[in-house]
Amino acid sequence: MIQVSYQGEPGAFSEEAATSFFGTRARLKPREQFKDVFSFATAGSGRLGIVPIENSVHGSVHEIYDLLMEHNLFITGEITLRIHHHLMTFPGAKLNDIRFVYSHPQALGQCAAFLRKFGKVKTVAYYDTAGAAKMIREERRKDAAAIASTQAARTYKLKVVRRNIETNHHNYTRFIALSRRSAPPLKVGKTSLVFAAQNIPGALFKALAVFALRDINLLKIESRPLLGKPWEYLFYLDISGSVREEKVRAALNHLGEVSTFLRVFGSYPTGTTIQG
Amino acid sequence: MIQVSYQGEPGAFSEEAATSFFGTRARLKPREQFKDVFSFATAGSGRLGIVPIENSVHGSVHEIYDLLMEHNLFITGEITLRIHHHLMTFPGAKLNDIRFVYSHPQALGQCAAFLRKFGKVKTVAYYDTAGAAKMIREERRKDAAAIASTQAARTYKLKVVRRNIETNHHNYTRFIALSRRSAPPLKVGKTSLVFAAQNIPGALFKALAVFALRDINLLKIESRPLLGKPWEYLFYLDISGSVREEKVRAALNHLGEVSTFLRVFGSYPTGTTIQG
Repeated sequence: MIQVSYQGEPGAFSEEAATSFFGTRARLKPREQFKDVFSFATAGSGRLGIVPIENSVHGSVHEIYDLLMEHNLFITGEITLRIHHHLMTFPGAKLNDIRFVYSHPQALGQCAAFLRKFGKVKTVAYYDTAGAAKMIREERRKDAAAIASTQAARTYKLKVVRRNIETNHHNYTRFIALSRRSAPPLKVGKTSLVFAAQNIPGALFKALAVFALRDINLLKIESRPLLGKPWEYLFYLDISGSVREEKVRAALNHLGEVSTFLRVFGSYPTGTTIQG
Repeated sequence: MIQVSYQGEPGAFSEEAATSFFGTRARLKPREQFKDVFSFATAGSGRLGIVPIENSVHGSVHEIYDLLMEHNLFITGEITLRIHHHLMTFPGAKLNDIRFVYSHPQALGQCAAFLRKFGKVKTVAYYDTAGAAKMIREERRKDAAAIASTQAARTYKLKVVRRNIETNHHNYTRFIALSRRSAPPLKVGKTSLVFAAQNIPGALFKALAVFALRDINLLKIESRPLLGKPWEYLFYLDISGSVREEKVRAALNHLGEVSTFLRVFGSYPTGTTIQG
């Protein structure tokens, strides 16, 4: 039996990612903070983690990159969740009686156009979408609805009364799986890494040459100033290909020569996108 | 009299950035959503906006880049705010009577080590740090404290009882100023731009050559998949130098030749960092 830790309440999007990625064989372990997920995955074999690394609206989660640097874990896979928001009520509540809508401010914002047309309701900001659904269940509120995920509706046995009410339908979150052991070797897929380069003109250009010269495609690049070292930068890269390929290994050796720091987080299969 | 719009409650970090950047001559206009700030700045002369673009813990705010693309506004300046968290109470409340601490879950997480040592208090997640301070004031709570900014303590007349209680002291947010008119021309500073390149090996490498060949430094780079066009990417770049410089103009013309899309958001002076 494997155990998988995620951050958030039961019913959170991270739980959905964990179930979709690991299947029902996994025993799920909700944790309060991201760092608790990393500690959990570090503590023993058969213990894994899943965390969000990037959202199409809100960007990369730098905190996760920091935690990757602080722990000796591998990225062993990825899964992308399409984020949908639904309006849900306590079973038996009448739509006409709904006076309040609870959710996280970001979700309320993403559903603002729907809410304006929906009628005279007061929106109430809540710390978490799943937490709002939980409150409606626990307090048996028939005058209020929550905006949250399908998973939250299932977890807290609420009735979805309006589906996909978000304005921007291009809302995706990419999650990564974490383990003390690297993924089984594959000849395809992608590789995630971080390296440091001095902030001199052309330093990044030289570093990227190691991939361009070998026709290795960049899938993601992001720079980040190194705290306390104002003239050095970290670069997070995803490249196509696996460390099982000769040309990828050669490129990484070459990168080691032209950078001041290099760490490879792992090679893993390119993930799929599922509907949240 | 200029008017400056920001997102959030009075007492929010964005308000502090607005005051620090524009000074007390500005009349402040709080708005609920980021897009309301962009609409405000677009609507007339003498109307400006200020929004967060990047946080050292949570990464870039992609939503702001999307809004930049949808509006015809220039970036005219930047300011970086060092984020500090403080514990604050209703005046006259006794520390021994504090049973609850309210704040945004991210702030509670960043102060977890302090809270463990502080004693037997229950943490309560709130949608917003300034909102938690506002609630303590409005409900005159003497059994609860909030974790929020100096600005929030001033706004809601609370007493700061413990300063800088965050564990990670490297928490910075960079804000950008928005205007319908570009900044007065300068011969120094930085330039922000976005361009699109095909996802073929070496495409980004070629694009960056236009800067490397002219000894122009990259200050920030971030890739983002173009939604609906799975093989094209957007790249957000900050480069050193102003469009008033001949070599910067030449590089941008060159970039126009090797990219499928290019937009320059503006050249502006490099900003300072202030203590929040």
